[in-house]
Amino acid sequence: MPRRSLPLSEVYRLLEPGPVVLLSTARKGEPNVMTMSWHAMMEFEPPLIGCLVSNRNFSFNALKATKECVINIPTVELAAKVVGCGNTSGRDTDKFKKFGLTMAASSRVKAPLITECFANLECRVWDARIVARYNFFILEVIQAWIDPSRKDPRTIHHKGRGVFMVAGKTIRLRSKMK
Amino acid sequence: MPRRSLPLSEVYRLLEPGPVVLLSTARKGEPNVMTMSWHAMMEFEPPLIGCLVSNRNFSFNALKATKECVINIPTVELAAKVVGCGNTSGRDTDKFKKFGLTMAASSRVKAPLITECFANLECRVWDARIVARYNFFILEVIQAWIDPSRKDPRTIHHKGRGVFMVAGKTIRLRSKMK
Repeated sequence: MPRRSLPLSEVYRLLEPGPVVLLSTARKGEPNVMTMSWHAMMEFEPPLIGCLVSNRNFSFNALKATKECVINIPTVELAAKVVGCGNTSGRDTDKFKKFGLTMAASSRVKAPLITECFANLECRVWDARIVARYNFFILEVIQAWIDPSRKDPRTIHHKGRGVFMVAGKTIRLRSKMK
Repeated sequence: MPRRSLPLSEVYRLLEPGPVVLLSTARKGEPNVMTMSWHAMMEFEPPLIGCLVSNRNFSFNALKATKECVINIPTVELAAKVVGCGNTSGRDTDKFKKFGLTMAASSRVKAPLITECFANLECRVWDARIVARYNFFILEVIQAWIDPSRKDPRTIHHKGRGVFMVAGKTIRLRSKMK
């Protein structure tokens, strides 16, 4: 896995466009993964990410208890696996096995990286005070990885009910915006 | 403006993919607009949207004081105007005039709709308790509009520093996911 460390100051550029992600956790040695689209950047550095993980998801308790996870960013080649992860539960399914997703050890957290994804963000829970009311976790990215061999990763963006927009062309405008 | 009302239960399908939006406000009869990308869905119905509006933005005080705004969703044809709105401030600039954006009256809030955008979400602040700590507003969409003549709106998704991903093709997978 030819990954390189990505400066934390660059993390927002991966998530701000709004891709579907795979959120991996590990609790008591038991890994799990869920599909997630409801996330937003909240700070550049340290990178803070707000995300909604429903308490109906098996991952909710793992995230709440371990305060750690990895946000893995898939591309269109993984779309069927992403939908599969969204349609099953870790309660009764080993999703890694069922969908052929490969785990690798993270450097800073116990939750695994998913090697098929072109980027992996190791996170710990920064603020859980909004969880009780909204199931909304604020995560801090503490280590980011990217596969430098993927020159044009085509992320997928969920429009509901299994309809996805696939990332299209890139345009560049002169901007003072960060 | 041939807009039709969009059921509130469908709103998440517009924002979940992560488009750049134009957030319009009006305070003491003075309208303003800012570019925003840091937003996430937080509930299907009523549609709740969490969004970060920095207190360095002129819109921050308008949103905080009036507790109302409109989220307008632009397409790639408006990219230069979107960047323009991001690079200027309502403190010293009438952005509607400068960038040729057209206002129309909203039905439920005082903030204006932007007619060049294919969708407009009239919002009021649902929860401002997280604003002090994170500049994070939770908005409720109370009226949604869509231009039904726009069959394939190409949203833009900010990757930082004026680089945008333009929405590409749509794929459909069988899914139980909402």
